[in-house]
Amino acid sequence: MAGLTRRRMLGGAAAATGGLLSSKAEARSPDPLITELQDWASQTGDGVDATPYGLPIEYERDVIRRNVPWLTADTISSVNFTPIHALDGTITPQGCAFERHHSGAIALRKQDYRLLINGLVENPIVLTYGDIERFPRETHVYFCECAANTGMEWAGAQLNGVQFTHGMLHNMEYTGVPLRVLLAEAGADMSDQNWLYIEGADASSNGRSLPMAKALDDCLVAFKANGEALRKEHGYPVRLVVPGWEGNLWVKWLRRIEVVAEAVESREETSKYTDLLANGTARKWSWVMDAKAVITSPSPQAPIFHGYGPLVISGLAWSGHGRITRVDVSLDGGVSWEIARLGYRGSDKALTRFYHDIHWNGNEMLLQARAIDETGYVQPTKSQLRAVRGENSIYHNNGVQTWYVDSQGVVENVEIT
Amino acid sequence: MAGLTRRRMLGGAAAATGGLLSSKAEARSPDPLITELQDWASQTGDGVDATPYGLPIEYERDVIRRNVPWLTADTISSVNFTPIHALDGTITPQGCAFERHHSGAIALRKQDYRLLINGLVENPIVLTYGDIERFPRETHVYFCECAANTGMEWAGAQLNGVQFTHGMLHNMEYTGVPLRVLLAEAGADMSDQNWLYIEGADASSNGRSLPMAKALDDCLVAFKANGEALRKEHGYPVRLVVPGWEGNLWVKWLRRIEVVAEAVESREETSKYTDLLANGTARKWSWVMDAKAVITSPSPQAPIFHGYGPLVISGLAWSGHGRITRVDVSLDGGVSWEIARLGYRGSDKALTRFYHDIHWNGNEMLLQARAIDETGYVQPTKSQLRAVRGENSIYHNNGVQTWYVDSQGVVENVEIT
Repeated sequence: MAGLTRRRMLGGAAAATGGLLSSKAEARSPDPLITELQDWASQTGDGVDATPYGLPIEYERDVIRRNVPWLTADTISSVNFTPIHALDGTITPQGCAFERHHSGAIALRKQDYRLLINGLVENPIVLTYGDIERFPRETHVYFCECAANTGMEWAGAQLNGVQFTHGMLHNMEYTGVPLRVLLAEAGADMSDQNWLYIEGADASSNGRSLPMAKALDDCLVAFKANGEALRKEHGYPVRLVVPGWEGNLWVKWLRRIEVVAEAVESREETSKYTDLLANGTARKWSWVMDAKAVITSPSPQAPIFHGYGPLVISGLAWSGHGRITRVDVSLDGGVSWEIARLGYRGSDKALTRFYHDIHWNGNEMLLQARAIDETGYVQPTKSQLRAVRGENSIYHNNGVQTWYVDSQGVVENVEIT
Repeated sequence: MAGLTRRRMLGGAAAATGGLLSSKAEARSPDPLITELQDWASQTGDGVDATPYGLPIEYERDVIRRNVPWLTADTISSVNFTPIHALDGTITPQGCAFERHHSGAIALRKQDYRLLINGLVENPIVLTYGDIERFPRETHVYFCECAANTGMEWAGAQLNGVQFTHGMLHNMEYTGVPLRVLLAEAGADMSDQNWLYIEGADASSNGRSLPMAKALDDCLVAFKANGEALRKEHGYPVRLVVPGWEGNLWVKWLRRIEVVAEAVESREETSKYTDLLANGTARKWSWVMDAKAVITSPSPQAPIFHGYGPLVISGLAWSGHGRITRVDVSLDGGVSWEIARLGYRGSDKALTRFYHDIHWNGNEMLLQARAIDETGYVQPTKSQLRAVRGENSIYHNNGVQTWYVDSQGVVENVEIT
């Protein structure tokens, strides 16, 4: 940043005008937005008492979750994607954080909430919402990524927007009770070979098996996100948080935890959430979300609208194995790489925001980003990934994404072959 | 936490029942919420496509900003307080983050936005919103506290709720361009003795003088909060972020920055935002928000509803001088202190969440918390503060707050004399 204080970025074009793109003629005529008294400076604005819980201003009405109609045709089992092309920083507001449900989002009052912990336990227990609030709690920021994020891209570039290719992703500050504390309360048999079978209170129940070691490590029985109560569609009043692992394990409307001697092999972990390989066999228990980065701007929904000159390239990186230590950016489709600036370095298993500041001269670009995490793992190209996994899978696609930028700043989802 | 895995917290009372408060007779009768099929488990829930930008579930309708009617009688110049009694973690959702305005919240479109930097500069510049997005940006979490937070308590305990005594406070992840970068673009004279005069685009303009050293240190010209655009009432599309300093300096709808040789001594820094002392003189330029902690639960709006036994005491701590290093909690009005657990340790000039887990036997309590920051500063008692500052002030009251808890768990705002 020190260098920036000694040179000008936009130069004279921005002086006394409406900015870089103004022509010289315009540059000399007064800008009425500066020289004339405007309504908003001569009249009082709105009060806020009428909106005790506020919404975004109307001008931001396009920054919303969106679905892909052909992907989930009904509202019972659907997914809505985070508008990551329009966001910055790392925190995802709950209002536009992606959500996936298998039988609708249910409305469950706190007074009707019960959590049963049974199975291989000394004392089966039922906890009310109030009970859960009495155990020592923790607060952590974690990303949550659907295993199917980027899943439509296995066979080639398909969806023209980072909201759709990478938007099954959010990052929130969760508050809850460590799962290990509640297992101790029930006197659970915490032997390493045991599993937990986790169910939600909705009709799908979304039952999943969780290894005991993960349960004892960092899972949270969470009741707040970004400071406030979970939203209905995120599992109000209580959901499981399974840091770094696929979102489907983060069971919402958490109803029951059964300690079992063997994995259940439920419908959710056999018909779905296994990875079909090229040879026709399927990988199972592929829970961890491997390191991944993507450029969120410029991207197809966030083209370059301001012409040539200084350009901020910005994106997100994350790893289910820990912290992001480096992000590389390429402007030429992976031929050469530069190290991006980590603009906000996330904590363990949380999103990191990266920035790469360039001077764009209007050349076509093939933009890529790749993540490196604290284990030394380097995010693979799509070709490298397909060589191992084939093209039949849905889940765990963390291949490097390519955006083609034309000379007008229009951006497209492409593949380098 | 290790100890907790070896003993039970709620004990047998919670087993197979609705929790600790159930009588023994009830403990043996089946809980239909566990044994019977419920509507929400047999019918599908709502889709989410209809709420592409979601709001809290209806059951949380009380978790909203509130005003104090007698404090600001009109909507033109009013303040709405964050419901910190109902929040946890550290992030404040924009929807319920406090806001203060002096002539209403104005609706200013990005295309109508201009920022003029003039005065002692080589090149006066006007920046559009798009221009600002082209400079290298940063992301940081900072608290914003109104100088008048806790201001009604100078002469004694008055408002019975932490939302009202301490709720002129929020903590968000801001993204923006360092102010020093824009000053460099204008070729500003960055001499230490210079000041900036900062104005907003609303009718009040809320002009304030800012010393050059602070401007060059950590101020941001911010356009995102918690990842998304600023809300209208928080200064959409651009506000100034002045980390650790009183909220009134965080000028909203930022319109003009003039580099000046002397402080302007504007209406906002003479008629208001100076601190009247006991001898009739006033302190000025008291910008930094000193270290402060408060227990948010239990508190008057968050009484203990679950009877005796395990109790989580939770609160917030912050300092305009840097990081919080320790929070002490007292159950007996400051006679004895214990060190609280820092549940989420905030970064520099950001909120820290603390927890203190106790077993409450129904004894009356006088709850207090005090913050210690990285400079070694210890938050003063109200008596210590009044000895220096008198009782005539409005601003910068960071005295230790006392909550009286009766044997039924009802909580009141009191003073220890």
